[in-house]
This record gives sequence, structure tokens and C-alpha cells, in this order.
Amino acid sequence: MYTYPQLFDFTKQVFLKIGSNERDAMLATKVLLSADLRGVDSHGIARLVGYVRLWEAGRINATPKVKTVHETPSTAVVDGDSGLGLVVAPQAMQIAIDKAKNVGTGWVSVKNSNHFGIAGCHAMMALENDMVGIAMTNASPLVAPTFSIERMLGTNPIAVAIPAASEPPFVADFATTTAANGKLEILQRKNQEAPKGWIQDANGNTSYNANELKNGGALLPLGGDRENGSHKGYCLGAIVDIFSAVFSGANYGPWVPPFVSFLPMPEHPVGEGIGHFFGAMRIDAFRPADEFKHHMDTWIKRFRAATPMEGYEKVLIPGDPEREMEAERLKNGWALLPPVVTDLKALAEKLEITESLF
Amino acid sequence: MYTYPQLFDFTKQVFLKIGSNERDAMLATKVLLSADLRGVDSHGIARLVGYVRLWEAGRINATPKVKTVHETPSTAVVDGDSGLGLVVAPQAMQIAIDKAKNVGTGWVSVKNSNHFGIAGCHAMMALENDMVGIAMTNASPLVAPTFSIERMLGTNPIAVAIPAASEPPFVADFATTTAANGKLEILQRKNQEAPKGWIQDANGNTSYNANELKNGGALLPLGGDRENGSHKGYCLGAIVDIFSAVFSGANYGPWVPPFVSFLPMPEHPVGEGIGHFFGAMRIDAFRPADEFKHHMDTWIKRFRAATPMEGYEKVLIPGDPEREMEAERLKNGWALLPPVVTDLKALAEKLEITESLF
Repeated sequence: MYTYPQLFDFTKQVFLKIGSNERDAMLATKVLLSADLRGVDSHGIARLVGYVRLWEAGRINATPKVKTVHETPSTAVVDGDSGLGLVVAPQAMQIAIDKAKNVGTGWVSVKNSNHFGIAGCHAMMALENDMVGIAMTNASPLVAPTFSIERMLGTNPIAVAIPAASEPPFVADFATTTAANGKLEILQRKNQEAPKGWIQDANGNTSYNANELKNGGALLPLGGDRENGSHKGYCLGAIVDIFSAVFSGANYGPWVPPFVSFLPMPEHPVGEGIGHFFGAMRIDAFRPADEFKHHMDTWIKRFRAATPMEGYEKVLIPGDPEREMEAERLKNGWALLPPVVTDLKALAEKLEITESLF
Repeated sequence: MYTYPQLFDFTKQVFLKIGSNERDAMLATKVLLSADLRGVDSHGIARLVGYVRLWEAGRINATPKVKTVHETPSTAVVDGDSGLGLVVAPQAMQIAIDKAKNVGTGWVSVKNSNHFGIAGCHAMMALENDMVGIAMTNASPLVAPTFSIERMLGTNPIAVAIPAASEPPFVADFATTTAANGKLEILQRKNQEAPKGWIQDANGNTSYNANELKNGGALLPLGGDRENGSHKGYCLGAIVDIFSAVFSGANYGPWVPPFVSFLPMPEHPVGEGIGHFFGAMRIDAFRPADEFKHHMDTWIKRFRAATPMEGYEKVLIPGDPEREMEAERLKNGWALLPPVVTDLKALAEKLEITESLF
């Protein structure tokens, strides 16, 4: 078991070693570990080695100058200057929040960035400002649109955070696929089959093989197949892609650069880096903040009190499981899988981190 | 077969008979029939009788004074004054468009409205202004959240319309459930079973009975079950509900009034009428409009050229099938189902429409 302060200190040292300044290293660490805290282990410290490899491959600028390149009172396009998405994203979200303070809402599309950790972390920045926060990003193409055998979209997540009064906030954060790639990785490690509706093989047939992506298969959009609405998941993934990259000038669709450094970059890029999209809406831009939050409390209480199926304790509010996990892990720490520890140990040696945890 | 001008004339007469002024009758007719034109027969003229019944039940104000009750430069809350959603929605969308002209984007939440036809029709108003349009609405509770046996949400659709240059626009318009209620009605009429993942029975078990809602069953959120991501469909439906109603002061969740006039109104309402949410984003608020539209063309062409599965001609772009249907029906007209014709005949008699088509 490792504690949050222990892992925070180690992770921050790694970002300092690759050249981030103190502020950026703090920010990147906070964002990266928010995934572990919320139980999204696939997007947290397990990916630290991947970020360092991108830096080694010359794809990460450790000292980015994040700047607005186009704007109106309620919008901006931000150039991430090839920085860590973990650092670019919170700065872009802050611009959205500042615009919302002025004119009610703020909407920021980002180009020339890299993977930004979990979307929910950025959306939640809005909460302390009594705003609704929205965050989305495109990602490397692993998903086949309905009727396609070609991988055209990333798992393109959407996060929406909504404040309440006495109830904890509503925080939705989900990939626009049946299952996120991280869930597939868990099955791969356990050598288990994937459920129907998660994956297709290279010819577009249903596959239960959790390793099918290595054989040219693809993840499926939310819905799974046409009969169960996969065209809706495809629409959602497409909207995220367009808002994140066609608005900003980033790469979209099959041109989005891969997260893993060993894969080649797509030829003939249509933009710069990967793209994100952020939104902030002041709740008092719609009605008095107290009134809104009172009704959110009513909404949350009523849904939590919905009659559950037999065998289930209660209906969950989006964000409930992650919040409970965060409280647990902040208190007691958490375990890392042996291959993750091995990776971090090697990383500590390579970067000559003294007094390393690993 | 009936032609568009024939059905337009008849429908407009109906709205005039219930007291709409000339402008509102035109608008309501245009919006209602856009559903038929786009092939969404369940939301078009087949529902005209339902709207009239709501008016007879005193739930529709035929001469609404739609007004803004709260605003900032980029947002507004609109009171629909119990008007037809078909008339309130385009006025609210126009406010979003006007705000976008001023500050880049406009976001309007609506209370005290009624059903607004198809969401796509309103989102598409943005296109001619070189804007991205967004429309959503809540609706009567027919959908059970993940783990719930209680119906808490409507089919809560989301529409997003995005302009391109030489390519036709991208127009997504979908219920946040596996299947819209209209699809279930088709199965009911054909006496066919529903696929797995569409419906659950009163105890939360999988049901194939297209009439299960009459026995206390529920529609399922997009994803179908937990393993296939129904919690994501539940999140989407919840976000639509909150943006449409908690922002505006409309009824939300199980308090949303039913569309059918014979069902009782929910007790202890938490707001006024049903709610909608509209957004408009100027594309040149992000980058020069020509540049954006050029890249949308590239996006659309690349996705349409994705390798299709064997047996499928091509990968579709959202909006393709509906646009083709519209061209077909504008040219050749379309048939109405016998029960719809019977309903319209009775309506013509009751409202004493002279020289009726029916």
C-alpha cells in the first residue's frame, strides 16, 4: 500500500526530472493522481512511464507556453505548445471559467496538446466557482463507427460536473464506447474474455477476445451494435472529436497521434497534436445559485431514493462510487499492481530519483 | 400518398383552429412536419391529435407570450408561457443564435413548455448562421436508471448540427435510450418482440414484450445493462434533464408531465411544464469559418470512406439517412398509416375544417 503523499512526492519528482517547473510538476501530479484517487487506475500513475516515453520521443514540451490564439467574449482556442495535457488542460479550463465569470459561460477548444488524464478532474474545477463544468478530449483511433471495420475514433470521453447544495456534486465521466480501453486491459491481465458488445474483430464480427485490438479489431461505440444504438455512441464520439479538434485545429479521427510512443505518428497530419474541449456555465447565469442548488439536492435525493432492483442497495448518482473511493484511498492509501511497481522502479533508476519510494 | 404542401395546409388549419395566430401556426406546422420529412414518423403529424388533446385538456396556451426571465450576455432562461413546444422552441433557439452573434455562443434553458417535436429541427436552425446548434429536451418518465425499477427519466434526446462547406452538414439527433419510444410503437403495431437491451419488466428483468411499459416496465438507457454501459446512457439522460429543467425551473425527473392528456399530472410539481436546452456556437468564434468548414469536409469525406463491413455499402455520416428521406418525401410525398388517417379524419370533423384532405 502506498499513501497519496508518498505517490504525490514521487510523481512530482518525475515531472521535475523531465524539465517541468515547480508549478507545472505540481499541477501534472495532482491531475494524474486524481485518476488513482477516483479509482480509474488505468489513467493514473500506471501511465506515468508512458508520459515519460512520449517526452523521450520528443513529443512532449516540458516547458510549454500555453496561449490563446483566437477568442470572443465566451470562447477561446488555446495552443497547448505540445505540453503535457495534464498541465495544458487545467489552464484551458481556467480560461473557460474566467470567461464564464464575465459573460455567463466560457468554451475553450485546445489544439497541440497531449493526453490529459481523466476528464472528470478538469470538469470538477468548475464546481468551486458555482459553475457547471464540461470536459472532453479526443484520443488515438481504437473505435470503429457503426458498419465500419476501420478504427476511426478514440474512446473520446465526456465529463460533466454539476454543483449541489448539501448533496455532493453530480459528476459524470465516461468514455463514449461500451467499455473504456482500461477495462479491456484489466481483462487482458486476468486472461478473461470480454462481454458481447465491447469488441469486434478485423472483419467486424463480434469478438470475445480481450486482445482482439492487436489483431486489427476495434472497440465498439456505446450501444455495441446497430440494433442497440451503436450509431448513438458513434455520434457522441464524433461530436467530441469535432468539438475538440475541428474547432481548435488539432488532429481528428484517424489522424490523432497515438499515446504509446512506439507507434508511428499518422502521416499527413490535419492539425497539431490532440484536441480537448472545455465548458463552464455559471449556474447564476440561469437562475439564482441557491435556487439551482436546492433543486439539484431535490434531484439527487429523488434519484437516490428510486426503487432499486432486487439485490441492489440503491440507485447511484453519477460520481458516487468515485467519491467514496477517493475518501477511502486518501485515508488508507492503495496498492499498485506488480507490473506498475516494476515500471516505476525502472523509471526511478533511469531518472536517478534519490530516496525513491520504489 | 400525401404531399408536403397538402399536409402543411391541413396541419396549419388545425393550429389556427385551436387559436394559434398565423405566424405560430406556420411555425408549429413547419416544425411538426420536419419530423415526417426526416422519416421520424412517430414525432410528426401522427402526434397532431395528441397536441390538440393537450389543448382540450387546458394544458396548451395557444397564444403564448414567450419571454426571457433571466439572462447574461451568453445565456437566457425563457418562460414558454405553456405554449406549444413547437412554437416556443424555435423562439428560444433564435435567442441562443442572437446571443452567439454578440459574444460567440448562446445558451438558453426553457421552462413552462410542452413537447417540441424533433430536436434536430431546432439544432439545424444554427446551420444557416454558420453556427453549431445544440438542442435537447426532457420528457415524461419512461426510462429506468441503471439498477432502478422505477421510471425516472424521459427518452431525453440530444441533437447537434454542425455545418460543412461542400459536404452536407453533420446532424446527430438521438434519444439517450437504446431505442426511442417511437420504435417500440412500431413493434407494437406489428405485434413483434423487442430486441434484448431495449426494455425491462416491472422487476427489472430483461423483457422482449413491446407492450411491457403498460405492465410497469421501463425503457432502458443507451447501453442496455450495466455490463454494456447503461450507466453512461443514464448519465446522458440525466444531463439533458438537468440542463433542460434544473437550469430553467421546469419539472424534472419523475415530475415531468406526461405527453398524453389522459394520464394525471404528477403531484407536487417541482417546476413549470417541461424543459428544453438550446445552444448555438459561432464557428468563427473558434477559427475562421472557411477553415472550419474545409476541415469538416475532410472529416466527413474521411469517415464516409472508412472501410465498411462486408454487406454494407458505406459508413454513414449522422444526418445522411434523414436528408435522403427528406429529399424523397418532398418530391414524392409519403403515405400515412391507416390509424393516423382515421385520427386526422376525426380531428377534421371535430374542428370543422372545411375542404379537408381527410
